[in-house]
Parts: sequence; structure tokens; C-alpha cells
Amino acid sequence: MYFEDYVPGVRTHHPRTVTIDQAALIEFAEQFDPQYIHIDPAAAADGPFKGLIASGWHTAGLMMRLYADQYLRKVGSLGGPGIDKLRWLAPVRPGDELRLRTEVMEARLSRSKPDRGLVRTRAELFNQDDVRVFSCEVLTFVGVRPS
Amino acid sequence: MYFEDYVPGVRTHHPRTVTIDQAALIEFAEQFDPQYIHIDPAAAADGPFKGLIASGWHTAGLMMRLYADQYLRKVGSLGGPGIDKLRWLAPVRPGDELRLRTEVMEARLSRSKPDRGLVRTRAELFNQDDVRVFSCEVLTFVGVRPS
Repeated sequence: MYFEDYVPGVRTHHPRTVTIDQAALIEFAEQFDPQYIHIDPAAAADGPFKGLIASGWHTAGLMMRLYADQYLRKVGSLGGPGIDKLRWLAPVRPGDELRLRTEVMEARLSRSKPDRGLVRTRAELFNQDDVRVFSCEVLTFVGVRPS
Repeated sequence: MYFEDYVPGVRTHHPRTVTIDQAALIEFAEQFDPQYIHIDPAAAADGPFKGLIASGWHTAGLMMRLYADQYLRKVGSLGGPGIDKLRWLAPVRPGDELRLRTEVMEARLSRSKPDRGLVRTRAELFNQDDVRVFSCEVLTFVGVRPS
């Protein structure tokens, strides 16, 4: 996948899914986001979400895994400057199965570095009930196709 | 820390640091962001960053850990709707030691739920050479102080 392969307006439903289990959810949160809603099942059951929910950063990481494997592929990516408008739209709970939808919003060649372009992609995650749980806009530098 | 404790304009340099080592960097990326610049030291040495760099999502997770431990404290936080303007400003490499600076940008009471407010915070990470490596705006719901 090179810069030329990212065409604005193209929306893709990616087939791979990832399932989050309770042990992984707690392990991630103990390392990065040790709030009780993410690490303490008993306390979380009495909390605002009526049960354990994933750290939003864990959900973001799972998005990245699906994105790297299915959207970036092996070639072309030169890293990214950042993310805009990241939103956690619904809780992600143990056992949830997530899939990725992408939409190319913008693709423009770099003026200073003609070997690459900047691609802006809306990346969204849906769960097994088709509830949209996560959305963000990913900025990625992608190399142009070698001539 | 309750809603009333977040005062717009207040900037805080937090004392705790976190160090990222190569094994943890690779382990995170193998799970969430398996690009060669994050998991293959030899290939990364010949790549655009002249060496292994952390997945940007790993850096974001470390920000969250410093944020949760030092800025949210034990009480008040009711989760967050999202993140704006996340930027990876400089590479994070094995051995880097990161610290957090926060600035309260905005704090407003919820109109629909009077028990809470929304706090917008700029969160930035600096490394041991005082290079700013990461910036984002975190939105967090925080409960008001019980009367």
C-alpha cells in the first residue's frame, strides 16, 4: 500500500476482529490506567458503568493493531504525526469482539518531502452488536510508489 | 481532587517519571503496533529514525499512567469522552525517562448532570533532555465536591 492507494472517500469494512478478555483488560490497566473501573471487578460492578470496562487507551491500542495489520500493510507507512478527535463512544467490556472500519478523508502530497504524502483516515471500531464504540482521525505519512 | 480543584490556567510540573526500556517497548508493539520501527532493532537501525522507537500508543499509555497517578488522584474522575489534538512530536527511544506537565485549559459544569463537570487539560510529556515528545488535550468528567 503506497500513497496512491489511499483514495479519499473510500470506506472499508475490515474483516479481522479482535476479542478483549478480562485478564488482558485488567493487565493493561494495571500498567497504564489503574482506575478501579478498569482493574477491580467488584468495585466496578457498583460503579458508573455497572461492571468492568476497558481503559480507553487499550481500546485505542486494539484499533492500532487492526489498522496496522489491515490498512497499512507491510510497506509505505512512514509513521504518523498524530491523532485528532479521538472519542470513546460506548463502553468496551470483557468478551467484546471489535472490528475496524476506515474511511480515507484526505490524502495530500508533501510539499517539502516529495517522496511521501499525508493521509487522514477516520478509524472506527464496532462491537459484536454493531455498536460504534470508538472513533478517531489518524494522520499517517505514506511513501509514494517507487517509479 | 474534585471538579473545583481544576482551575483554568494552572500549569503543573509533576515529579514522577517513567522510564521505557527496550524489552517493554518491543512487547507492547508486538501486541498493538507491530511495525518494524517498533519491534525489529536491526531493521529499525536502517530505518527513518535510525533505531528503535516506541509505538506512539505506548507513549500515550505512559502519559495516562502519569496522569492517573498524579493528576486524577483517587477520587472524582468519572471517565472521559475523548482526546483532541494528540501529537507525537519527537521519537521516544529505549531508556528515555518521561515526565508529565499538565495545564488546565477549561473547566465547565455539566448542564444536564449537575453532579459533574468537564475538564479539558493539555497533557505534555518531556524526556530527560527536556525535549517535548508528546502533547494532547484530555477531556475528563470530574465529580463536584460533595456538599
